[in-house]
Amino acid sequence: MPTVATALKRTVLSALGQRTEEPPISWLMDLALARPRLISLAAGFTDNATLPVRDTRRLLAGLLRTRASGAPALQYGTTAGLPELRRLTVEHLRQLDAAALAVNAGAGAELDNALYAPEQLLITNGSQQLLYLLSEVLCDPGDIVLVEDPTYFVFLGIAQSHGLRCRGIPLAADGLDLAALEQTLETLKVAGELPRVKLLYLISYFQNPTSTTTNLANKAAALALVRRYERAAGHPIYLVEDAAYRELRFAGADVPSALTLPGAAERVVYSSTFSKPFATGVRIGYGRLPAALLTPVMRVKGNHDFGSASLLQHLLARALADGTYEQHLAVLRRRYARKAAAMVAALREHFPAGVAWREPRGGLYVWAKLPARQRTGMKSPLLRRALERDVLYVPGRLCYTDDPTRRAPDDEMRLSFGNASLAEIATGIARLGGVVSEFI
Amino acid sequence: MPTVATALKRTVLSALGQRTEEPPISWLMDLALARPRLISLAAGFTDNATLPVRDTRRLLAGLLRTRASGAPALQYGTTAGLPELRRLTVEHLRQLDAAALAVNAGAGAELDNALYAPEQLLITNGSQQLLYLLSEVLCDPGDIVLVEDPTYFVFLGIAQSHGLRCRGIPLAADGLDLAALEQTLETLKVAGELPRVKLLYLISYFQNPTSTTTNLANKAAALALVRRYERAAGHPIYLVEDAAYRELRFAGADVPSALTLPGAAERVVYSSTFSKPFATGVRIGYGRLPAALLTPVMRVKGNHDFGSASLLQHLLARALADGTYEQHLAVLRRRYARKAAAMVAALREHFPAGVAWREPRGGLYVWAKLPARQRTGMKSPLLRRALERDVLYVPGRLCYTDDPTRRAPDDEMRLSFGNASLAEIATGIARLGGVVSEFI
Repeated sequence: MPTVATALKRTVLSALGQRTEEPPISWLMDLALARPRLISLAAGFTDNATLPVRDTRRLLAGLLRTRASGAPALQYGTTAGLPELRRLTVEHLRQLDAAALAVNAGAGAELDNALYAPEQLLITNGSQQLLYLLSEVLCDPGDIVLVEDPTYFVFLGIAQSHGLRCRGIPLAADGLDLAALEQTLETLKVAGELPRVKLLYLISYFQNPTSTTTNLANKAAALALVRRYERAAGHPIYLVEDAAYRELRFAGADVPSALTLPGAAERVVYSSTFSKPFATGVRIGYGRLPAALLTPVMRVKGNHDFGSASLLQHLLARALADGTYEQHLAVLRRRYARKAAAMVAALREHFPAGVAWREPRGGLYVWAKLPARQRTGMKSPLLRRALERDVLYVPGRLCYTDDPTRRAPDDEMRLSFGNASLAEIATGIARLGGVVSEFI
Repeated sequence: MPTVATALKRTVLSALGQRTEEPPISWLMDLALARPRLISLAAGFTDNATLPVRDTRRLLAGLLRTRASGAPALQYGTTAGLPELRRLTVEHLRQLDAAALAVNAGAGAELDNALYAPEQLLITNGSQQLLYLLSEVLCDPGDIVLVEDPTYFVFLGIAQSHGLRCRGIPLAADGLDLAALEQTLETLKVAGELPRVKLLYLISYFQNPTSTTTNLANKAAALALVRRYERAAGHPIYLVEDAAYRELRFAGADVPSALTLPGAAERVVYSSTFSKPFATGVRIGYGRLPAALLTPVMRVKGNHDFGSASLLQHLLARALADGTYEQHLAVLRRRYARKAAAMVAALREHFPAGVAWREPRGGLYVWAKLPARQRTGMKSPLLRRALERDVLYVPGRLCYTDDPTRRAPDDEMRLSFGNASLAEIATGIARLGGVVSEFI
């Protein structure tokens, strides 16, 4: 048999199988595993101390108390998701938007209750699966997606795997640099490439990695802008709003989602998750999709797994229905506020002047930019030194797509206060501050 | 905005998004929902009465009793799966094969313990996700997969969605018609199409839909046959063994898996699941993959969801570790034996002579073939009449691929004793027997 094997010269893998690269997260995890004393400020894991162990035990005990309530949670469900969870989720989303609109009334947007219909909502395996399904259903190799610059690096992994071209739109303080978005669209139009543009991907709340929140006016302008180019594209260009961190807000007011904008019903995909605000080990996400996308996405989801695990969906439906979810979220917000404050205090104490960062108002991240183009990348001396000091961050470069139309910065770092304990945050930032001081 | 919308002429969907058809399961479910008094012998759902409600409650209460044991179940894990579950699963699989080999010693196969290494095992969202990942990583549109004729219709859906061509190999009593397999490979070789052939997909235990079990000699011959054509293909041709029903055996001895065959380490993908033998609402499957496939499959799984839900994996690890899984399986086997016997008795009583079917020895299905090419398909008068009598089956035609090299039969039905109660089985088969008698 070995002689046959050596005679085989072609790859058996598909184009996708050949193309798909190792995700940077694997590299980061290998680094962490190799150094057991490492303090990781890199991981996107959530806070261990507040994981709802007792709540989950109580909810599951109730769910499984009788065969009548327990059996449906152990049986297959439908591809779209548990009807009760779809209903509760879309109502939860409606209430979020109604409350956010009430304090953002100046924005002029109105709530269209018809948008918040359970039939338009799909339950997924984390919001990650929805991003994957959308990429499959909308994009062929060579197609273009517009992303924030920087953006969520796992989405960049999906795009890389599918052979997509990403165009990065710089982020300003309140959302996209709209002039840059317009210029990119115009350039694509002139090049005849607009028909390849399928979507604009926004992480609009406490963005991963920069913690930027996009205000409603910015979302409205971005949506109006891409719509102006639809005629030249010949098809809709979707606004995919990833709201994964929306509910992890500990300062300021909530912002209405893009669903509250005119024309949203047919152009906005709202993607979110219960993983981060409840428990990452439960991995249930959801999306509200335009009718034209819901059917193809559901069909492909049917091929992936014909529906997410019933047990997890029943658990979350109970958490939403009896108020456990909201109570837990309040605990979580206080916790992350405290951890963010600890990181900010440590940054003030240990980071040299000239490093730029902003105080987060939610989410899990602080984004720091070093002065004088000091490199922070995967092969930089600074990262090597940080590892020697047993502290790890996410190199900012990983969050930038390979957009040939601009040079990606390599002088930033994503610092997460999600998983590290208060003590680890203090020690980790002190170590990292020492390393940074050596270099600048 | 509506004027813009009407001006848009191109589809925004990808080739996959446009191509993917509505799965037949949706159509069957719509039929069922429209008739609340319907007895469905179509659903692939499992037995409600034996769902392990009490076991799951006890295991989860133990898991979530303390923060130390509960927190990891509510946190992210790794893409490959919980190390403890991978270890227990591969050891479980090794024991199944060791026991099966002991009673099949005549087959000459030997157990290579090195094959059963946790590092080669991947945990997935049901075995469905593994089938999807394999298709993504191995197959480009136009590639060819060899399938049993008939086969699992959801796999056909995946193939359809990815634009694959399926070639159906007829099934004999003990597995593939090997002469037909050889002829198909030879024909493909002559046509210069072998480089497009990526895998042979076998549901080797109590097959869905026919309940056929493939014996070890047949698997060995099939593997040797495809390997003979690898030189002309220029790359490996994988044997994907789907063992989803393996443990739902209630008569006869277990058959060693294709992993026990020479050369299996680099050619056999063994795919199975805990969904059916434990609880379909828990949706955890697994696969043992050759090294060359594990890396690309893991990368794509990372993009799908970076790992299946920890809570479900911890639950199953506990069920395997403390014997709950084996005890539950014994209950399940007795239950399905009884339900299969009830279906067989009802078939004997109510089905007219001339309808051919075999007694199942495991799994969830009886496959029945009507005489005189009596049509059973989606638009057949017989199916319409069955619905009027409030009984539903899966039309056999749905389980045949659109292989242009042969005409697919349309005179069969898949009858499931999985979900229907004993009373429903008796009533359902009586009704269906009446309908069939009207037509033949």
